[in-house]
Amino acid sequence: MNLDKIYAPVKNDLELVEQKLTAIAKNDIPLLSKLLEYALLNGGKRVRPALTLLSGKFNKYNRDVLIPMATAVELLHVGTLVHDDIVDNSPLRHGKQTVCKTWGSNSALLLGDYLFARAGSLAATTENMRVIRRFSETLMTISGGELREAGVSFELPSARYNYYKWISDKTACLFVMAAECGSVLSGCNEEQITAMKDYALNFGLAFQVIDDILDFVGDQSAMGKPVGSDLGEGAITLPSIIYAEKNPGDGIIYKILIEKDRNLVSEAVKRIRESGVIDDCRSIARDFYSKAYEALEKLPDCEARGSLHALITFVIERNR
Amino acid sequence: MNLDKIYAPVKNDLELVEQKLTAIAKNDIPLLSKLLEYALLNGGKRVRPALTLLSGKFNKYNRDVLIPMATAVELLHVGTLVHDDIVDNSPLRHGKQTVCKTWGSNSALLLGDYLFARAGSLAATTENMRVIRRFSETLMTISGGELREAGVSFELPSARYNYYKWISDKTACLFVMAAECGSVLSGCNEEQITAMKDYALNFGLAFQVIDDILDFVGDQSAMGKPVGSDLGEGAITLPSIIYAEKNPGDGIIYKILIEKDRNLVSEAVKRIRESGVIDDCRSIARDFYSKAYEALEKLPDCEARGSLHALITFVIERNR
Repeated sequence: MNLDKIYAPVKNDLELVEQKLTAIAKNDIPLLSKLLEYALLNGGKRVRPALTLLSGKFNKYNRDVLIPMATAVELLHVGTLVHDDIVDNSPLRHGKQTVCKTWGSNSALLLGDYLFARAGSLAATTENMRVIRRFSETLMTISGGELREAGVSFELPSARYNYYKWISDKTACLFVMAAECGSVLSGCNEEQITAMKDYALNFGLAFQVIDDILDFVGDQSAMGKPVGSDLGEGAITLPSIIYAEKNPGDGIIYKILIEKDRNLVSEAVKRIRESGVIDDCRSIARDFYSKAYEALEKLPDCEARGSLHALITFVIERNR
Repeated sequence: MNLDKIYAPVKNDLELVEQKLTAIAKNDIPLLSKLLEYALLNGGKRVRPALTLLSGKFNKYNRDVLIPMATAVELLHVGTLVHDDIVDNSPLRHGKQTVCKTWGSNSALLLGDYLFARAGSLAATTENMRVIRRFSETLMTISGGELREAGVSFELPSARYNYYKWISDKTACLFVMAAECGSVLSGCNEEQITAMKDYALNFGLAFQVIDDILDFVGDQSAMGKPVGSDLGEGAITLPSIIYAEKNPGDGIIYKILIEKDRNLVSEAVKRIRESGVIDDCRSIARDFYSKAYEALEKLPDCEARGSLHALITFVIERNR
């Protein structure tokens, strides 16, 4: 199923989110306007705002608060990407130069701050205290998680645990917030909210595992960034971890991550691709997928539930 | 009057703010804990939280919301300083190495994000929608203001206007928020809130003008950073602007700011010091001071009002 079909139950409202983003990009500060346009209006898949809107479909769908909330979720997401690209010194994202490469890291830093604030301000318009609190907590988790990861060195016994904690904090946490806020704002009961959060957590974990697989096996032009970028930037993702676990005699991952020998990256990518490790990773992603699916089963059957289900399949099968 | 005397009406509660900051610095992420301790627990003057608490003294002083709010204000302030020091590449603040120099700009960036989020989360505990909204708007103004300033080039006809807009956005705006939230949370009427905001705006402007004067005439060891730092970093502050206005034949400011000839900084500092421009700047600071004082007169006479008055005198007369 393509994204258009998956998004069908919230098509019009996603369009309104897009219009809101376009309006936000128009600012009386010329430099800020250019930065916002560059970062916000890029034909992104809008998975997270779609999650908020679809999660709002299980009780009283309240467009007036769900649209600002979905927009706020996307602003927060883009803000974290802009800051992430500074931290990782990434040249490309989705085939386009990153904000920090194009406009310099100072402008990118201030843009991220502005996006966080604008997002918070929009979330506040819902006047829902739980949603407002979850919003700040999410940014705490994301920035704190990056600092946790920065303080961790690569050691096999704890590597998988650290990885799951890290991707839970940096990726799944925003999915959870997006879905939780959607269901809270539509007046779902706690049982439904918990099911929705379970779905989003496992969806987010599957999403990130697939992302990390694609960094090794993806098509460079479809991905819009070089293969092996994560490892090259010193990020310890699941394929490297499982490869190191399964090949205790091969020190290549250690040499790259601990001795910082980045010349070995393409050789490591080759060995990982040929080792069958990617299949193990796909199977782990499928486990998360199954858990997300089980959580969905606890929610009433409706068109939106079908979309949330199809959304995972789309993510699992995507190639960029 | 010394700060202890000025802060007397809120002494105990400022102590509780300090305890809250100490508790926040203890975190289960070791690197984050170190960063928070370094940035938060440094014997700062806590002018902004004091402003929030003192502003809460004009109607029903509500400790339960004022203390979290005052803490949130300080967290937001420190977050903006941490990010500012990255943008300006500043080596020193208050005689101590900046976070970005000590821990690297990536850690500083993530610390700032965490502080903003933690601040927002604390502000949300007040459950006061006006306060929560003002909180996000303030960070929007600060980051947007820096981007406005970054897009502006030095031209005399507009330099003073741009300078006032800039210091209003980067400094006074946080003072206004601190005071506004204090008075809103204690249930002041709109007239009182407006008077308090007027006071804080003019106090903040005076504060920044004095700061910018001290960059030229301050004692290097008391200031904890080299004289002329602003000009060296390319910042166009009031002394340089008035000097350029009064000495149209002397191109030294242009050469530093536009041709980026940073070797001329110490000569420019000398000329500015000897030119009498500093007296003009002091007189402008006193004008702001008078306006702040006039605004205070509209509020009921009480011990807190005396403190708010004395606080301006303290700032005007400070040497660091």
